[in-house]
Amino acid sequence: MSLIVQKFGGSSVANAERVQNVARIIAETYRAGNDVVVSVSAQGDTTDDLIEKAAEITQKPQKREMDMLLSAGEQMSAALLAMAVQELGCPAVSLLGWQAGFITSSNYGAARIKTIRTERLQVELGRKNIVICAGFQGICKYDDVTTIGRGGSDTSAVALAAALHADRCQIYTDVEGVFTADPRKVEGARKLNEITYDEMLELATLGAQVLHNRSVEMAKKYNVELEVLSSYTNRPGTIVKEATTMEKMLVRGVTKDSDTARISVIGVKDIPGVAFHIFSRLAAKKINVDIILQSIGRDNTKDISFTVSRANAEEACALLHGLDITAGLKIMCDTTVSKISVVGAGMESHPGTASTMFEALYAADINIQMIATSEIKISVLIDEAAADRAVAAVHRAFFPAE
Amino acid sequence: MSLIVQKFGGSSVANAERVQNVARIIAETYRAGNDVVVSVSAQGDTTDDLIEKAAEITQKPQKREMDMLLSAGEQMSAALLAMAVQELGCPAVSLLGWQAGFITSSNYGAARIKTIRTERLQVELGRKNIVICAGFQGICKYDDVTTIGRGGSDTSAVALAAALHADRCQIYTDVEGVFTADPRKVEGARKLNEITYDEMLELATLGAQVLHNRSVEMAKKYNVELEVLSSYTNRPGTIVKEATTMEKMLVRGVTKDSDTARISVIGVKDIPGVAFHIFSRLAAKKINVDIILQSIGRDNTKDISFTVSRANAEEACALLHGLDITAGLKIMCDTTVSKISVVGAGMESHPGTASTMFEALYAADINIQMIATSEIKISVLIDEAAADRAVAAVHRAFFPAE
Repeated sequence: MSLIVQKFGGSSVANAERVQNVARIIAETYRAGNDVVVSVSAQGDTTDDLIEKAAEITQKPQKREMDMLLSAGEQMSAALLAMAVQELGCPAVSLLGWQAGFITSSNYGAARIKTIRTERLQVELGRKNIVICAGFQGICKYDDVTTIGRGGSDTSAVALAAALHADRCQIYTDVEGVFTADPRKVEGARKLNEITYDEMLELATLGAQVLHNRSVEMAKKYNVELEVLSSYTNRPGTIVKEATTMEKMLVRGVTKDSDTARISVIGVKDIPGVAFHIFSRLAAKKINVDIILQSIGRDNTKDISFTVSRANAEEACALLHGLDITAGLKIMCDTTVSKISVVGAGMESHPGTASTMFEALYAADINIQMIATSEIKISVLIDEAAADRAVAAVHRAFFPAE
Repeated sequence: MSLIVQKFGGSSVANAERVQNVARIIAETYRAGNDVVVSVSAQGDTTDDLIEKAAEITQKPQKREMDMLLSAGEQMSAALLAMAVQELGCPAVSLLGWQAGFITSSNYGAARIKTIRTERLQVELGRKNIVICAGFQGICKYDDVTTIGRGGSDTSAVALAAALHADRCQIYTDVEGVFTADPRKVEGARKLNEITYDEMLELATLGAQVLHNRSVEMAKKYNVELEVLSSYTNRPGTIVKEATTMEKMLVRGVTKDSDTARISVIGVKDIPGVAFHIFSRLAAKKINVDIILQSIGRDNTKDISFTVSRANAEEACALLHGLDITAGLKIMCDTTVSKISVVGAGMESHPGTASTMFEALYAADINIQMIATSEIKISVLIDEAAADRAVAAVHRAFFPAE
């Protein structure tokens, strides 16, 4: 007998029919002899509808009250899902964040899970109940309801699995697992059977949008074995775990991230402290910088380029214009770029990966603007217009049609 | 400085505009120097919508899960109302049933309030916060969410007022107070400035539909001064309190209750235990009997008539058909009757009240089928088709046009 934690997102429970479908998955897992704990998101558009309701009242809702409002969404879906499971003849009980013991920090709207007091969960499991937890929520030391912020439902599930020492944490989504590229866009994209936490983190960061980074980081920290799978098909998904027993595969996937802008400062004085002045200022404004590239310029000057998300591009440029060190210099901002990356733990011992990627881009006549590498990924910045073509070309190079 | 508890029903907060209107009432009360605690219902049709959602999943939802589901309704309205009050510049905090300390019995769906642990409420009031409580909900000894059942929001408000020793409990509704008759139907119906708890109880029972009986009973028990008033007009309502200082008024109101059916058994043997056999059987099936009338029949037999709500009429008849004591007897059921009542604490010392009522009905050519009296009310059963005419005639007799 195993203890399985299952997470179902908003689209998986968007209406009665889907709730009943999810209930069947849960009941099947339970009837196979497992203890089952579920973390469920709010149904479909519920959260957006509630945000709109608040906007009709005030443009600046207090975060505490937003958490009170939004947490009702998961409360409703948890109750409905418990009913659907009971309707299938399985004992079930829904629990809110405070009942399931989710103790969080008190920064409303983006609370961190501090601990899960599992007493009530253990009692319900001891009664052989399927426990349906309202995801995304907890309580803080003031006994106020909090929400866990972006990726909160995935993170709730992983935290449950860690606290209960679950044998597996299944994240049900609308895709069948983690793919070598976006299967809707890249012909020949393949589902991975396994992937490491680190690879998954790189893929998530790079726009694969399957699992939220916070949840993968937590899974890695507590060594929770994750499975990403679809609630619509009855097929095995992708297992995310430590590398030990994994199949050897050079590259795990090819991703595209178009939420990126390149900013360049031309002709900065070549003196110490230039990078510090620029990037500390950006950090102070909480602007995340991704790729950084510093080139040798002329006449004791250099050029510095970096990428930020498009939403931050304008503010970043304005900041640079206000710095002494870049005053009067030419500052360029290009928001028509995309970042293409290949990710794979195998590549660190295979120097040929980069050249395979570059060759594929060259053969497709695509110009590379910037390059950044880490131990398990290679990213290039290219013209956005060529991005889909680039992904297809690179993917074909690493995953030739069989 | 006073402590005021205010209750707002679902129609008073049905949309953003009405929420903002209610927030203005609250802010005005607060700015007049009062401490304010609010009990709010779910918005408009929210509860019905949630019941329908559950019905799409299962025809027999567990009550525990229904409470989990439905309590989200008040949670959302409480958060939205707190935002609206904050938007007006007043400090406010929303609290769920468990946060406000509502400890209830564990009969889900119809829980009774056992106590209110006021620590958190006192803390928030000490911070000069307006406290917006989600009405209708609490938690039981198992730390499960419960709902308080019919009239729960009114009862929540009165319980808050009792626990906090509030100076007044204001029940905001869509009518301006308690009237001598239904103002939508009876010309010349007048708003009462004051009424006693007992009179209010009789009026509520008889279909005035302003305050739920449970809340009035609790108000009487804990001597909470109630005020019934409209959230749409800025006018004083009706005060409900002990009789001591009240204006002397013979009759408080005239009411009509059409949810009534008359059942008659003709020719029951005139032996001891007949009434016991009939009514204990009805009680065992939880069928409430209102007026009972036993008349002398012929040949050592008697006729027994009583009224039940229409929903229970068929079951009551079936029960009677199955009794030994009424086997083979003629059992009649008339579901086209209405009960007309006059209520007033003054009438017990004024024997003329009954005759004034009967005279008014006689003058209007309306036949009386049954009569029942108590210390503070007189009820008659008449043909439903004549009910509105009867109310108008009786009301005119006690409240002549000025």
